[in-house]
Amino acid sequence: MSGLEGETIADTQKSRVDGKIGELIYHGYNILDLGENADFEEVAYLLWNNEYPNAEQLAAFDAELKALRTIPDVVMTVLKALPKDGHPVAALRTAVSAMALTDPDADDVNLENSLAIAKNLVASIPTIVAAWERLRKGLEPLAPRDDLNHAANFLYMFTGEEPSAEAVDAIDKYLVLLADHGFNASTFSARVTTGTLSDMYSAITTAIGTLKGPAHGGATQAAMTQFIDAQKMGPQEWFDDARANGKRVMGIGHRVYKVEDPRAKILRPLAEKLAANHEQGYWYDVALGVEQAARKDAYFIDRNLFPNVDYYSAPALYMLGIPLDTFTSLFTMSRVVGWTSHVLEQMENNRLIRPRANYVGPTGLKTSG
Amino acid sequence: MSGLEGETIADTQKSRVDGKIGELIYHGYNILDLGENADFEEVAYLLWNNEYPNAEQLAAFDAELKALRTIPDVVMTVLKALPKDGHPVAALRTAVSAMALTDPDADDVNLENSLAIAKNLVASIPTIVAAWERLRKGLEPLAPRDDLNHAANFLYMFTGEEPSAEAVDAIDKYLVLLADHGFNASTFSARVTTGTLSDMYSAITTAIGTLKGPAHGGATQAAMTQFIDAQKMGPQEWFDDARANGKRVMGIGHRVYKVEDPRAKILRPLAEKLAANHEQGYWYDVALGVEQAARKDAYFIDRNLFPNVDYYSAPALYMLGIPLDTFTSLFTMSRVVGWTSHVLEQMENNRLIRPRANYVGPTGLKTSG
Repeated sequence: MSGLEGETIADTQKSRVDGKIGELIYHGYNILDLGENADFEEVAYLLWNNEYPNAEQLAAFDAELKALRTIPDVVMTVLKALPKDGHPVAALRTAVSAMALTDPDADDVNLENSLAIAKNLVASIPTIVAAWERLRKGLEPLAPRDDLNHAANFLYMFTGEEPSAEAVDAIDKYLVLLADHGFNASTFSARVTTGTLSDMYSAITTAIGTLKGPAHGGATQAAMTQFIDAQKMGPQEWFDDARANGKRVMGIGHRVYKVEDPRAKILRPLAEKLAANHEQGYWYDVALGVEQAARKDAYFIDRNLFPNVDYYSAPALYMLGIPLDTFTSLFTMSRVVGWTSHVLEQMENNRLIRPRANYVGPTGLKTSG
Repeated sequence: MSGLEGETIADTQKSRVDGKIGELIYHGYNILDLGENADFEEVAYLLWNNEYPNAEQLAAFDAELKALRTIPDVVMTVLKALPKDGHPVAALRTAVSAMALTDPDADDVNLENSLAIAKNLVASIPTIVAAWERLRKGLEPLAPRDDLNHAANFLYMFTGEEPSAEAVDAIDKYLVLLADHGFNASTFSARVTTGTLSDMYSAITTAIGTLKGPAHGGATQAAMTQFIDAQKMGPQEWFDDARANGKRVMGIGHRVYKVEDPRAKILRPLAEKLAANHEQGYWYDVALGVEQAARKDAYFIDRNLFPNVDYYSAPALYMLGIPLDTFTSLFTMSRVVGWTSHVLEQMENNRLIRPRANYVGPTGLKTSG
């Protein structure tokens, strides 16, 4: 009963997750196709418009997003005021919430206005994530560049360096792969917020806070933390120790997938490729080693537990120079496309999402009053 | 299917809403008893601890909350930086989100720490709401006073004046009545956020954004807006016009209650009492006039549509000098007790809340790549 596990609760045109055959499609397009052939901008267009863009549509859309990359001064002031030892996702959640107050149309929930806010959020979030990283290092944030695509501009703002083609491609693929995934918990929470006719900023603020949890977006960070331990002990030794002590292996197993997560099929070779020319290429080997240990373990075999999207995202992001505590911010940069497209879909055919609870407390008590 | 209407999805010990007989209990205590005999502090203690406090427990708890009323400097800086024409609930959502960054234990989800955050939020939110009101009037926020109870201290910080006993009592009753209500949308959204093992600040930030919608907390403001129109036209004339033009009457009808909302039974006389000595006492008459018009209308009779909690809250809050756009902030001051108690309950017996979607989009499409 609790957890709504396996319960189908509404229609969507955005994505389909088939856990039995390990298939994910975004509005008709297989994730394996998109992972090979689409870039993030195309996926954003697809999920918002329920249509894959042609070259002309894509160029106009790209220009529109580029023009929205600069964040309001107020938001930068808020980021500067926040203590820099706080969680990057808490800072991002606060900045997105603050953006509402800089938008005179924040509370207008019509579809056209809400799509405009969606574009603004997708374009602005990388700027916020990069600004936070720079500020906490004591550096001034860098202004966005409009000669770079979404992934490249983020890497430039985040690192302060001209990114390599390989890094840009890896980030772009990551952003494509994580953009949507049915009614995952953060998307569902955004739809619950929208169900009260609340605004796009509220819905995305909700989703960020939900993604932050270690059982959702925070899992990639948890997976990397375990690889850091496994690298010290050796993958098989670490795995044996984890099993002996009843520790959960992070990044393996999924609520919906009972075969391999199709996104892992792309992320594994992506991590392998990044490792090939990387001085810390051993992170791929460690992750692969833990996976191989799990694939020989009866518990994992019997329960069909395979690496999920978080598993190979972890070494990939780490080799790209993303700090551990910023992994979930990267996830946000991608999933905000899915969230906003689901919010628009919810708004189009809205119904308050309000279940019932089964009361199991006492009855018949009285105050002495 | 959509909306989870009537679907029982988890257990709770916090409150029971019986829509058939119009009964609401908080952990065993009838809302009619609490509305008469409890104050807000007692209800907060009850919902957090699943136990009604004795005098000694209450005194210690009261001192604890009083010590937490001052908000961190960082949060005040953020409030000062935000544009003052923004929505008060957006400012409150941002401030609560920012509070996480001032708390070194923000991400610790153990029960004891999460209860400490809950207390901090309940004590701080009135200070934030009052600070926002003062700041947007160009006034300096006032420091909280520890010689006043929760309701009185809020009114003092908000108005800058010594509140009357009648006003304190009315705010206190309002805070008691709205503190919890089963799996309403904002509470449910907080539980979805918590389901990923995310933290208390994230959950309450989510809930505030969900409450903001006009189909939930925002309904009281919508109800008052209609009373302002109805006062100009006359209640019966306004009602006839609304019916003729297919306009929804705000504050009448409820997803769960099919008889009178028990909270309306207390709020109606409360508004009447406030009106008796008030120069704008006519707001009560307007609300009563619209209710009487609805009670004679076949549509409302046949569908069992009665005033809900929002309906008489509207003239009561308005006569207490709360600006229209701040009604939902007052709702937050109360419901944060329910939210936090449900989050603690969710944490105690957690399960990811992740339903499925029914995919109705296309399949088999291919990129040209």
